[in-house]
Amino acid sequence: MTGPHPTTRRPRRSDPDRRARILTSALDVVAEVGVAGVSHRRVATAADIPLGSMTYHFIGMDALLEEAFTAFADSVATRFEARLAPARTIAEARSAVVAFIAEDVFADPRELVLTQELYTLAARRPDFRRITTAWMSRSRAALERHFDPETARILDALLEGLTLHRALDNQPRSTEEILTTVLRITTPEQA
Amino acid sequence: MTGPHPTTRRPRRSDPDRRARILTSALDVVAEVGVAGVSHRRVATAADIPLGSMTYHFIGMDALLEEAFTAFADSVATRFEARLAPARTIAEARSAVVAFIAEDVFADPRELVLTQELYTLAARRPDFRRITTAWMSRSRAALERHFDPETARILDALLEGLTLHRALDNQPRSTEEILTTVLRITTPEQA
Repeated sequence: MTGPHPTTRRPRRSDPDRRARILTSALDVVAEVGVAGVSHRRVATAADIPLGSMTYHFIGMDALLEEAFTAFADSVATRFEARLAPARTIAEARSAVVAFIAEDVFADPRELVLTQELYTLAARRPDFRRITTAWMSRSRAALERHFDPETARILDALLEGLTLHRALDNQPRSTEEILTTVLRITTPEQA
Repeated sequence: MTGPHPTTRRPRRSDPDRRARILTSALDVVAEVGVAGVSHRRVATAADIPLGSMTYHFIGMDALLEEAFTAFADSVATRFEARLAPARTIAEARSAVVAFIAEDVFADPRELVLTQELYTLAARRPDFRRITTAWMSRSRAALERHFDPETARILDALLEGLTLHRALDNQPRSTEEILTTVLRITTPEQA
């Protein structure tokens, strides 16, 4: 309750969700206009807070983007883990991966855009790669509970490419095709 | 030589490369500040042409972006085709794919950024997906000269994911790992 800046901290107590709302609004603005179009003013307006309050919560735009994208990546990674967690056999783990690709990923267009915005940011700014690196690391760890490390890495890369191609191509990918793909990769003993 | 706008066409004759330079400069600007930051003014400055000349060559920013990204996608697709063309056996085709992933893709950071910018644009604006769709279609066609259509689709998706993960992860991917991956996917008779 007491801190070095008791006065500036007061708004937080009266509006405890403000910080979380800024993060969500930052993602909303990124989804709408892209990372390049994000400004403190736009985020403040979207979050319905005074512009001056932004710098109290976030030291700058990079810090805000880093935390917002980290929260976004965490939410997708958590969903992926939840899909895989109940699997007890290799077959169930394969089905979970297929279901994730077919049903979860990019079902929401906002998620596709945010993922691409994050990748673009990480492509341009290596310092943001700790977010993509941590994300991939969590995905791989979730897969490694069911598959050997090499298969997990390959599967994770394939998952990336397959979901991207499903999203950006005009040719539909059937669930059967996804399953065939996963099967080819997850049967190393036959390769 | 004679056309409906002989006066406005004159600059083109005195500077025949202007249109091509606008396209290259548009990609340079996108690589630097992103699609969201592109403006006629920035591109004109980068191309060293009068701002007013932009609208002579391109009806608007969407038309410019479409043509610039199409040229970019075509150049990468052409390189991919060139890699695969000399292959005479499945083994050579596999090696060509591995070499493309290991050596060509995103060796230039600009290319990684431009690819991600295009994907982000296509994620946000379905009308730009004809560029990504055409690109994937060409990649698949190149692969189908050596692999069955299903394998070609899977390989193309994997190629996408693998190159992206190589670029945005901090873990190196060895050429051996890429080869292992390609082998698993290109031996359908054993799956």
